[in-house]
Amino acid sequence: MSTSERLRDLRASLTRHGVDAVIVPTADPHLSEYLPARWQGRQWLSGFSGSSGTLVVTADFAGIWTDSRYFEQATQELAGSEVSLMRLTTPHRPEHVDWLCARLTSGQTVAVAGDVQALGMQDLLQPRLSARGIVLRTDLDLIDAIWDDRPPLPCDPVREHGADYVSSSREERLARVRAAMAQAGATHHLVSSLDDVAWITNLRGSDVPYNPVFLAHLLIGPDKAILFVPPGKITPVLGRQLAADGIVLADYAAATTALATLGAGDCILLDPRRVVHALAAAVADEVRVVQQINPSQRFKAIKTPAELQHIRAAMRHDGVALVRFLIWLEQHIGTTPLTELDVAAELKRQREAQPDFVGESFATIAGYMANGALPHYRATAQSHATLSPSGLLLVDSGGQYEGGTTDITRTIALGDTTPEQRRDYTLVLKGMIALSRARFPRGTTGQQLDALARAPIWAEGINYGHGTGHGVGYFLNVHEGPQSIRPPVPGETGEPLLPGMVTSNEPGIYRPGRHGVRIENLIATVCAGDGEFGEFLAFDTLTLCPIDTRPIVTALLTTAERDWLDWYHAQVEAELAPLLDADAQRWLALRCAAL
Amino acid sequence: MSTSERLRDLRASLTRHGVDAVIVPTADPHLSEYLPARWQGRQWLSGFSGSSGTLVVTADFAGIWTDSRYFEQATQELAGSEVSLMRLTTPHRPEHVDWLCARLTSGQTVAVAGDVQALGMQDLLQPRLSARGIVLRTDLDLIDAIWDDRPPLPCDPVREHGADYVSSSREERLARVRAAMAQAGATHHLVSSLDDVAWITNLRGSDVPYNPVFLAHLLIGPDKAILFVPPGKITPVLGRQLAADGIVLADYAAATTALATLGAGDCILLDPRRVVHALAAAVADEVRVVQQINPSQRFKAIKTPAELQHIRAAMRHDGVALVRFLIWLEQHIGTTPLTELDVAAELKRQREAQPDFVGESFATIAGYMANGALPHYRATAQSHATLSPSGLLLVDSGGQYEGGTTDITRTIALGDTTPEQRRDYTLVLKGMIALSRARFPRGTTGQQLDALARAPIWAEGINYGHGTGHGVGYFLNVHEGPQSIRPPVPGETGEPLLPGMVTSNEPGIYRPGRHGVRIENLIATVCAGDGEFGEFLAFDTLTLCPIDTRPIVTALLTTAERDWLDWYHAQVEAELAPLLDADAQRWLALRCAAL
Repeated sequence: MSTSERLRDLRASLTRHGVDAVIVPTADPHLSEYLPARWQGRQWLSGFSGSSGTLVVTADFAGIWTDSRYFEQATQELAGSEVSLMRLTTPHRPEHVDWLCARLTSGQTVAVAGDVQALGMQDLLQPRLSARGIVLRTDLDLIDAIWDDRPPLPCDPVREHGADYVSSSREERLARVRAAMAQAGATHHLVSSLDDVAWITNLRGSDVPYNPVFLAHLLIGPDKAILFVPPGKITPVLGRQLAADGIVLADYAAATTALATLGAGDCILLDPRRVVHALAAAVADEVRVVQQINPSQRFKAIKTPAELQHIRAAMRHDGVALVRFLIWLEQHIGTTPLTELDVAAELKRQREAQPDFVGESFATIAGYMANGALPHYRATAQSHATLSPSGLLLVDSGGQYEGGTTDITRTIALGDTTPEQRRDYTLVLKGMIALSRARFPRGTTGQQLDALARAPIWAEGINYGHGTGHGVGYFLNVHEGPQSIRPPVPGETGEPLLPGMVTSNEPGIYRPGRHGVRIENLIATVCAGDGEFGEFLAFDTLTLCPIDTRPIVTALLTTAERDWLDWYHAQVEAELAPLLDADAQRWLALRCAAL
Repeated sequence: MSTSERLRDLRASLTRHGVDAVIVPTADPHLSEYLPARWQGRQWLSGFSGSSGTLVVTADFAGIWTDSRYFEQATQELAGSEVSLMRLTTPHRPEHVDWLCARLTSGQTVAVAGDVQALGMQDLLQPRLSARGIVLRTDLDLIDAIWDDRPPLPCDPVREHGADYVSSSREERLARVRAAMAQAGATHHLVSSLDDVAWITNLRGSDVPYNPVFLAHLLIGPDKAILFVPPGKITPVLGRQLAADGIVLADYAAATTALATLGAGDCILLDPRRVVHALAAAVADEVRVVQQINPSQRFKAIKTPAELQHIRAAMRHDGVALVRFLIWLEQHIGTTPLTELDVAAELKRQREAQPDFVGESFATIAGYMANGALPHYRATAQSHATLSPSGLLLVDSGGQYEGGTTDITRTIALGDTTPEQRRDYTLVLKGMIALSRARFPRGTTGQQLDALARAPIWAEGINYGHGTGHGVGYFLNVHEGPQSIRPPVPGETGEPLLPGMVTSNEPGIYRPGRHGVRIENLIATVCAGDGEFGEFLAFDTLTLCPIDTRPIVTALLTTAERDWLDWYHAQVEAELAPLLDADAQRWLALRCAAL
């Protein structure tokens, strides 16, 4: 079935229901970053496979709104179809709503499936359409009706996160969430975001690639919690354990009915960015709703000392895998034909040899030269580069370990490099070091610190189009909130970087068509003194892997920057050498030598 | 009449009108920073003279909500009165509203005079009180009724800003504002903020100290503008000129009536932070209201090349005054008894000797040692320090010239300094230089750059409690928006720093009871190249005055920082020497010598 046939069927369905336009967001009922196949309807309909974009279809138009990361990919994938690429001028802004408001007239109808529409988006869309007399329907799933071979719900089993790695029981976690609910005046709280559900319950799954989560909603009441989960995923033994811990099971589809039983005396806490409209709408009008961020978002962002110990162990394992990979790369480059795919495969092989490795935390980005200039590049069997013994290879990868999630980028000189490549490399390193060395008062947000990483890059008239850092989960999602290190987003208040938070530090420089440089470590926020001017915080670098010193223009580094790099390499060598054989130790000593 | 007698009269008035609580903000009908005496009712009632604070009075309570800058001053001034100091936990947050909501009950009444209540504040207060069944009355001016000797409206004359200094006519300015109104769909626009009125009309006055503004509202319609101004302030000749330029005069009190004549086809643009409720409420319900920042706020922030030339000339005059003052200080310190008051007086004397000087742009802050640790210190005849030939003197001052407004802080070593003083001094200098040297992409806000100035200070566990920079007017207010360089304020989106904007750069370190350091220059945003990564901007330092090099710990400066300071001093010497006599030139050469 082709895109045009699918759009034809969809339009027939629009006509049948008297709908003039349908919005198909990239979303599932949990508003996840990675969607189970069942909710990849936007891709199924349009042919565009990017991870972000909103499809709008009317009788005579079909278009995908997506951001600049995907312009090239979307152009290729949409070529020959009738689907237009609608270039977002501001990432993540609902510019398709402006388009709808401008094109539709009073009395017309827009449909969006309520089970994949964020509550916050609904609260934005509904009044804008109403103001123009446009009807919004959320009760129709127009895709489901035409999608014959729509994939079923994933049925992979759910398991306990290993007891050795868990720092508090699910009863303790439920108690913390209930305390936050009480503070907000809420008797109930619906948790739909899969990282929150996994963290609160200490359970893990494999329903989507890379993120060890499972499909479920969790409704927390004053003394009972209900886990709505597809049948067969939880063994009777685990079910009994959960029941003993105050969590009863119900069918995945029963969440709506359960929400409808809340009454006038109840008050429910909902995160407008992490709950879909269909579930929020199931709550009766007389129930008070408190909209705020899920309390567990902030709880799980702060890793306990025990968790940080496990993360440090995971970093050692990951570092060993990376060192072995780098040695393999050096041994083969120029002698064996290697592609970007071989790089990703070898890296995976090395990680798989490490204890407690569960899987990759995202699809490895191995971008050689011009491909490194695409921050979200992914080599495919159809399209990938072969490496030569010169220039820069950018490798961004990560692992899921029982004791933590890793995310690391190294840019590697495969041989000769140009002065531009070396200068770009050194500037990125300066930015990465500036953030690594930052000290700041408690209360400071990542929005305030972002410029510290950019300043040395800006100084040369260069910038990069992505954030400098994102939160990272603990054997959970590689992208987690609430903190980030990035330029401010209008309307959003930044979150303070608090002790125990783990965040990435990954400035970059991208020269389209030529090369890309990114250097990324994970950093933990730590206490750094309490004095006359209050409490100060700083970062402790967690990632353990040499940073290629060969492309560094030493003259561009300040003494403080050189000192930091030498200190970092001494740490890397001290931590990793005991885990390596003599040959690898010699290689490590060379790559960790002071500048 | 004492505070307690005034409060007694006020409470009698409350009873008479059936009001349970009255809010007295620090505000006038223009929401100015400096209030004409007529609107200093909050001070008249409470005895607290600080420039910021909200008084609330009920039958059995009176309290002032103010921020940490004023805790010490308020404690002193309120001592012995019944007025409580209510310490704001977050500056400028309306915490008195929380207090009122907690104390009052349904059916009770709160009053605030509508002519000094910001529209935005009204929009926040009204629903919060209504939700609790509390009535809000804005039609009572309870203070006016009891304030027998309330000062009249200021009657100082209004004059043209000198034609040599004006870069565009008032007709051109009105046309620009009308174009912005059209873009917002507005037929009318009420301008109440005095800096906006002065800028649009190219008029200046002297109704408040330090700011060359005059009391007026300006109602801009499609083809006519009405200036509501107290009688007698505009000469017949000027009035005829204004009429020829499309601005007719009306009495100051007639603005309300004029607003009430707008009808169903009209749409008025109002800035919720720059228009009071009483005027907004005069607009009929059928008139559409667009709330947004006054367009002229953004227009006047961007100085034209011609204005920047005048500002540079004003900076040379100001620099000469400052150099002569610094020489005088060096000649007298240790030989003649000098107080902080003498410092302010001599500085004023030197500025008055400069061409085109109009007056000071704010009250000079001359704080010796511990007094320098109070960022908003002001020496008085009753309380001031005598200088000794040791330690640090902080002098923050500025002038109003026909061709520009200046604002400069220098911290001066009067003799021996301690290691702590020298280290603090050097850290502040490093922060000031970091911001001076910043280069950044177009679109960057001051909220993003603030941390660049703080990073070297934060690195030593030190911070300062004020913003790093504020916008500065052109022969207008020394504090103007919309841009600033400061930590982000929740709910506020930062303004980009655009070419032509003039902003202060003034990090500091304050050691209560010991000393304070602040170093401040004004900086203009300028273009700094347009290349592969888009357009970049940078700062050009406008202020011309040596920075005392004696307290610098040279070893703490990087090569780049030393180079900047040497370069700056070379500029200062080159610009000022031609305007000084031989003795002063010798002094300048010494103080501008490379490190």
